[in-house]
Amino acid sequence: MAKNITTSPFAPKTRQDIKLINGVRCFSVNCGLYKHKEDLCLFVFDENTSVAGVFTKSQMASPPVLKCRENLKNGNASALIVNSGNSLAMTGEKGTKIVEEIVSSVATHLELNKDNIFICSTGVIGALLESSKITNALPSLCENLSSNNIEKCAKAIMTTDTFPKIISKSVSVNGKVFNITGISKGSGMIEPNMATMLSFIFTDIVISSDELQKMVNKFIDTSFNSITVDSDTSTSDSLLVFATNKINLTHGELNTFEGALQDVMQELAKLIIMDGEGIQKFITVNVSGAESDASAKVVAKSIANSPLVKTAICGADPNWGRIAMAIGKTQELINLNNLTINIGGHRICENGCVSPDFSEEVVYYYLRGAFIEIFVNVGNVGVGKSTVWTCDLTHGYIDINTDYRS
Amino acid sequence: MAKNITTSPFAPKTRQDIKLINGVRCFSVNCGLYKHKEDLCLFVFDENTSVAGVFTKSQMASPPVLKCRENLKNGNASALIVNSGNSLAMTGEKGTKIVEEIVSSVATHLELNKDNIFICSTGVIGALLESSKITNALPSLCENLSSNNIEKCAKAIMTTDTFPKIISKSVSVNGKVFNITGISKGSGMIEPNMATMLSFIFTDIVISSDELQKMVNKFIDTSFNSITVDSDTSTSDSLLVFATNKINLTHGELNTFEGALQDVMQELAKLIIMDGEGIQKFITVNVSGAESDASAKVVAKSIANSPLVKTAICGADPNWGRIAMAIGKTQELINLNNLTINIGGHRICENGCVSPDFSEEVVYYYLRGAFIEIFVNVGNVGVGKSTVWTCDLTHGYIDINTDYRS
Repeated sequence: MAKNITTSPFAPKTRQDIKLINGVRCFSVNCGLYKHKEDLCLFVFDENTSVAGVFTKSQMASPPVLKCRENLKNGNASALIVNSGNSLAMTGEKGTKIVEEIVSSVATHLELNKDNIFICSTGVIGALLESSKITNALPSLCENLSSNNIEKCAKAIMTTDTFPKIISKSVSVNGKVFNITGISKGSGMIEPNMATMLSFIFTDIVISSDELQKMVNKFIDTSFNSITVDSDTSTSDSLLVFATNKINLTHGELNTFEGALQDVMQELAKLIIMDGEGIQKFITVNVSGAESDASAKVVAKSIANSPLVKTAICGADPNWGRIAMAIGKTQELINLNNLTINIGGHRICENGCVSPDFSEEVVYYYLRGAFIEIFVNVGNVGVGKSTVWTCDLTHGYIDINTDYRS
Repeated sequence: MAKNITTSPFAPKTRQDIKLINGVRCFSVNCGLYKHKEDLCLFVFDENTSVAGVFTKSQMASPPVLKCRENLKNGNASALIVNSGNSLAMTGEKGTKIVEEIVSSVATHLELNKDNIFICSTGVIGALLESSKITNALPSLCENLSSNNIEKCAKAIMTTDTFPKIISKSVSVNGKVFNITGISKGSGMIEPNMATMLSFIFTDIVISSDELQKMVNKFIDTSFNSITVDSDTSTSDSLLVFATNKINLTHGELNTFEGALQDVMQELAKLIIMDGEGIQKFITVNVSGAESDASAKVVAKSIANSPLVKTAICGADPNWGRIAMAIGKTQELINLNNLTINIGGHRICENGCVSPDFSEEVVYYYLRGAFIEIFVNVGNVGVGKSTVWTCDLTHGYIDINTDYRS
């Protein structure tokens, strides 16, 4: 990890109250992939646990991603093993073999069917791994499993992250209480194209894998697929959602769960941005008036990924022309004569040129804050809209990424 | 301009020998758009000068770009006026009116047809400009026109550039001598999508505007459209090529000119990268074995625009997994089993995983150099190839762009 990397200013100030999930036990250890932090964790699920997932669209999807995709077809999860410090991506057949060895070893230790075991790896790309580092740690992992260790595991999956990311909710509906707890990691190589680097969500409700998958698919575009740190899509992006099938909900009550799942997915995604490499400002880009939601998202992503927009905001520079530039370089349908840009509550641009209300000084003071909102209406060519979350581009990003492996 | 910005390490060490172009006279002054540098220049052409051009594909193309597009239809150039310090982009009808005022004023001063006058503006987006600043300077510009002032004008068009960019050639063919001299500017907001921010090329050969335009179109993709500093496409990108029709060439001799034009376009484009904001390393990305040249270019641009690749190279980190990641995030056809990556002369990755010859130390020493070459074969799925030039992403880029207008 880079030297002198300080904790993100957006790290939560208070400790999260973590709801334990009946049917999920876990533990984490150091197995030697990192020198000074835990780097391996194991989750074990009660029998009959449903599972849903989405994965990176990268053509270089890592062997662990390929394994998860394969095992997801069974719709049943018994265990999940996760290491940080090595992604196993770009390791060819050797990597595939290592994954098989690890999964088989977990199956043997726990006397489980290996087709129900999930594996995720995050870290350096292209480096081989001695599978014995992981398999030798299995006895210690298996002996210490407990529902209490979620936070410990959230730390073990971190790489350049500066804080563990946990969202946890207990929801009451018609006198029934269900729980949903999710963790995620990632702070660079973040423009997920199906899911973020790694995110795991656990719940105790009763739901089939198919139904769970439908819900995840429904919310992925407005959560993990709406964040970007640096426009770089990881080879390891994986979201897995596990349901231990303990709490029965009626059809109506499932809607309540659906809302809670959407919240947790969106909040976990935003936590990843809050730990974006070098972040000083959390930026929300809202685009409306577009031909379609997809078109609005292209424009929002173009703004959110523009190095010039991100550096201007870092410097509190009300250089709104860079936002216009980022809209203009897309080939999405716009109506320049109707285009408006607001920063915070301040109208900056209307009818395609500077607004008479624009005060550089007022916007400068707004931009000195930590939470920045940009609103673009591309000219009411339709009702498409999209919200994308990102962070500024700072010296911290350069520090971290010129020095990742030293 | 940002404080403490030092001259690019790639600035030419020796002064360029500039070939004067018969039929081109110019001069530059300070008209008050910048405090401490010249910011306005005028080029006047002998009667019967041909012209060709390509412009930004941005939907926010500036009023000067729109004017040039319009006047290009006449195929005849009498004058070119260029200011730095204000791009006039995003200024709506007011900007259009300002452009008309400036062009009319140049026409009046020089007694020329205003339809043959070209105008280019570069600098801040979205700010209005008092046209009198420019029109008041016209007498001084007109009085001092001379063929000797190209270098002075190359400096006047600079914004965040740290050195003037000039390429000049005298070519002998069958005892005839023709000249070609080009200037360019730009160091941020550089991923041209038809041309670079501003580039002007002058030659004394006889050629029709149509023929000249065909040649420019032929070379634009492998010159200005093959460079990227930060993936951001300017609203002002303009390339204009002027031929004063003094030196008659035969059809065969025109091929020699064509070669020289291609060289000048490519060298001017590379000079822009050599002054890329914050540059410490000049990076050449070569992609081969792709389905088509266009497909190869998508992959090359994905590598060249990846913040993680650019920061790794800045830090001399042989973290080749980031190159693999950047290939993987495109949806271009690849064959992972045949994929190879070389850095300099060193084989890093073959058959989709690390090469047995890869020595991290050796590559680290190579990456400490100033000129970095990356070679990717996407797996011989075709014979498409592309070369893209870029620079690393450094603290200097952040310095410049968090502080552009102070």
